[in-house]
Amino acid sequence: MDEVNVVTLKDVKLKNPIMVEGLPGVGHVGKLVADHIVEELKAEKIIEVYSQHFPPQVLVMDDGTVRLVKNEIYAHKAMKGEKHDLLLLVGDYQSATSMGHYVLASTFLDIAEQYGVKRIYTLGGYGIGQLVEAPSVICAVNDIRMADEMRSYGAEFKENEPGGGIVGISGLLLGLAEVKGIEAACLMGVTSGYLVDPKSAQEVLKVLSDAIGIEVDMKPLEDRAIEMEKIMARLKEMEEAQTDVPGSFMGGDDDLRYIR
Amino acid sequence: MDEVNVVTLKDVKLKNPIMVEGLPGVGHVGKLVADHIVEELKAEKIIEVYSQHFPPQVLVMDDGTVRLVKNEIYAHKAMKGEKHDLLLLVGDYQSATSMGHYVLASTFLDIAEQYGVKRIYTLGGYGIGQLVEAPSVICAVNDIRMADEMRSYGAEFKENEPGGGIVGISGLLLGLAEVKGIEAACLMGVTSGYLVDPKSAQEVLKVLSDAIGIEVDMKPLEDRAIEMEKIMARLKEMEEAQTDVPGSFMGGDDDLRYIR
Amino acid sequence: MDEVNVVTLKDVKLKNPIMVEGLPGVGHVGKLVADHIVEELKAEKIIEVYSQHFPPQVLVMDDGTVRLVKNEIYAHKAMKGEKHDLLLLVGDYQSATSMGHYVLASTFLDIAEQYGVKRIYTLGGYGIGQLVEAPSVICAVNDIRMADEMRSYGAEFKENEPGGGIVGISGLLLGLAEVKGIEAACLMGVTSGYLVDPKSAQEVLKVLSDAIGIEVDMKPLEDRAIEMEKIMARLKEMEEAQTDVPGSFMGGDDDLRYIR
Amino acid sequence: MDEVNVVTLKDVKLKNPIMVEGLPGVGHVGKLVADHIVEELKAEKIIEVYSQHFPPQVLVMDDGTVRLVKNEIYAHKAMKGEKHDLLLLVGDYQSATSMGHYVLASTFLDIAEQYGVKRIYTLGGYGIGQLVEAPSVICAVNDIRMADEMRSYGAEFKENEPGGGIVGISGLLLGLAEVKGIEAACLMGVTSGYLVDPKSAQEVLKVLSDAIGIEVDMKPLEDRAIEMEKIMARLKEMEEAQTDVPGSFMGGDDDLRYIR
Repeated sequence: MDEVNVVTLKDVKLKNPIMVEGLPGVGHVGKLVADHIVEELKAEKIIEVYSQHFPPQVLVMDDGTVRLVKNEIYAHKAMKGEKHDLLLLVGDYQSATSMGHYVLASTFLDIAEQYGVKRIYTLGGYGIGQLVEAPSVICAVNDIRMADEMRSYGAEFKENEPGGGIVGISGLLLGLAEVKGIEAACLMGVTSGYLVDPKSAQEVLKVLSDAIGIEVDMKPLEDRAIEMEKIMARLKEMEEAQTDVPGSFMGGDDDLRYIR
Repeated sequence: MDEVNVVTLKDVKLKNPIMVEGLPGVGHVGKLVADHIVEELKAEKIIEVYSQHFPPQVLVMDDGTVRLVKNEIYAHKAMKGEKHDLLLLVGDYQSATSMGHYVLASTFLDIAEQYGVKRIYTLGGYGIGQLVEAPSVICAVNDIRMADEMRSYGAEFKENEPGGGIVGISGLLLGLAEVKGIEAACLMGVTSGYLVDPKSAQEVLKVLSDAIGIEVDMKPLEDRAIEMEKIMARLKEMEEAQTDVPGSFMGGDDDLRYIR
Repeated sequence: MDEVNVVTLKDVKLKNPIMVEGLPGVGHVGKLVADHIVEELKAEKIIEVYSQHFPPQVLVMDDGTVRLVKNEIYAHKAMKGEKHDLLLLVGDYQSATSMGHYVLASTFLDIAEQYGVKRIYTLGGYGIGQLVEAPSVICAVNDIRMADEMRSYGAEFKENEPGGGIVGISGLLLGLAEVKGIEAACLMGVTSGYLVDPKSAQEVLKVLSDAIGIEVDMKPLEDRAIEMEKIMARLKEMEEAQTDVPGSFMGGDDDLRYIR
Repeated sequence: MDEVNVVTLKDVKLKNPIMVEGLPGVGHVGKLVADHIVEELKAEKIIEVYSQHFPPQVLVMDDGTVRLVKNEIYAHKAMKGEKHDLLLLVGDYQSATSMGHYVLASTFLDIAEQYGVKRIYTLGGYGIGQLVEAPSVICAVNDIRMADEMRSYGAEFKENEPGGGIVGISGLLLGLAEVKGIEAACLMGVTSGYLVDPKSAQEVLKVLSDAIGIEVDMKPLEDRAIEMEKIMARLKEMEEAQTDVPGSFMGGDDDLRYIR
């Protein structure tokens, strides 16, 4: 096994393709959206990427079989009314090493280039440390000329946000794509950062659908968001019941622990 | 010294060999089983593996001599009634670096391939965070066709277990063996995760003996399990005596500290 | 992307150039000074350095565009009355890996050599763990013959300071420059180490201006120092108000938390 | 700068040389002894070793000059009555990375081989976590045939000690020397592990002097030991004064904090 192994499962020709990245990250927002699109569009897996930079483990499936941690690229051919073929980058984990983020981002961009990708969307969550009242999607671009277009899809640009920059693959893809002359935007669903957030994922999906011109059923994400809200309501109750207990370690609403 | 040094001590020809890996891990279950088999079968050491990925230290033996941290492969020729020669992979430590797990797993698979290994068993513990009432062995495979056979040996498949995947060499060997067309199963003794667990090791050994068709004396593991139970009984007493002490940091039964 | 990518933006010929390094560090003293000089002298960017050793992230600008973490080298041609052209090394971060510090320092020295640099100044802060009463600038050199000259610019040499050595790029540039026969001095503004310290930066700038024979407006740094003093005064008040609160986690004056 | 840079300062021919390693470690015992020998024998520096595996920093000398972190090898030619020339390996730090320990140990062994070294002594401290009543020196060897000889010099072999093996360069040199057919012993002064321990260093020096057949003045180490005992007496007093204070974080005699 090499530092990175790219396994091409199927040779496809794509017209005018857009790459969409949705790997695990803050609130799993990007992963929820990208996995959802793969499923709804019945996209076809064409590439698997293995790497020594991923965590050294296998995942165990429901039937007891295992598989190596990997990232995958799915292809979707434009259907009637759609303008772009899609390359969807999804997976189990981002790099487990600092340098590996650079190595893997470069690998994905080489693949993008090879398929003639001219635009990339990376998806993520922007954790604000408290429960989100009004959902919104923050945007960053690697080419200022994309900004107005992104706004027209409902994404917002806010000064000083995200203040700490964009960490990991979603950020590096934008930065490194610029060098290759590929335009790229990162769509970040505002989220608490403490919980997997299907509600925030819905917001990101709305903006992205507009941007890439697809229509996907939101229902599964809605269902999951409702379920998550029930869990949160229950947690709130538990907390309120506990507020009288001296020495309790759980804080207020803004302080929920990370739940997947 | 290179990144990995494979030192072949003896040239052996093996017929129909199965590889069994039992390196240190949760509850030292895998290591207990594999070391026990090496001893009981008087297997012969044929390979030593040294690596810069192991912890940078030497171990000191009882007589004051030292040796480098290493992994070892022992060979056992099938005796009357046995169908398979065995390659037993044992050692002091797993990799100390994240990438080293991949590097070493690849090394061991190259060795397996070289000896014509068609099946690998990796052994480990599955820590559940509380004392285990009824011992059992959880299984994962890299080929679904192995599942029924494994069940026939007494191994169980449980949905969502182990939920976090299989970390380290026992997992990676399964994942990477698949690529090489070698079938592999991981046998995980359910264990608290806080203690070295010879009782869980006995359970794994039962399943494995069936699977590879060997008979080994369980007595030494039984003795060690009895000894461990005495230690645990004493710990329980100590804890009960302490429960009245305010500010005590020891928890209940489920919270024993790790003891080797 | 390679381990280090040096992108030359513009070919310039420099006469008698001095290199000045001011990357982020203790109190951001070095960065404040070097960024200030770049701005005041309207120096021209000639080189960008990207590296897998930098943190794997992009920074988001005010307009929503991103850029990769990088270090930059600006050139300033000597104006009337100045004796030296300048190469100013500034940037977002130092290396995120231990070995990367060595790799990047070597890269910068190769660049320095290429431009015929004979002297380097590295700038930093020397954190003393308490608020600084009388500002001063500590110096270290890689050639004892520079010591008296440095003293003449107002820098001080104190035995056993800094006791822990100089960590990171500011130190390594001195150590590695010696091997190449380039003389180098590190100017360290004494600072608390808890706050970004524009006041300490002013002191360093005074010494450096003398040393390299430039004149730059101090006003912007002064303004920022005044602003910072207001913040500190407010913090003091808050602390004094809190001293009666039992269980308060904030300490006295010497214990301010890090504020940027 | 490469991963490791070996700079030979002087070409010497050595007869029957023994290598002695004393780099920083537990209680700085090894470093105290080796530095002391270098000084007392007025050994001559012949090699400097620089590496990206050392901490990325420079040390600042009393006169304000800096130098890179390094390891050094000094040579001592046997004087009248001495049987062996010596190669003394000393320095500022051990490797800062796990793999670097292996890389540097290999480097030092290559040097040893090159000079025809047939025996190596590595020096260290064995931390027992409490103040040491009767000083002693524990030994480990890479060849059992050395054991009796070591005992004759006053070193002791104790079963299960050191239990955790020997971490870092002092251990790896023994383990890796074995492969090259160089015999090696590690002399470990028993020490609390909390303090720099010149008293333990004296004990190690006694054993080593016997082993390598040199005579060195113990006075400087004795003076330092007396000084250290005064510091410890003062600490004891402070602790006794504090034992009545509720919430005090300092423990009893066995719990002194690390002081250099």
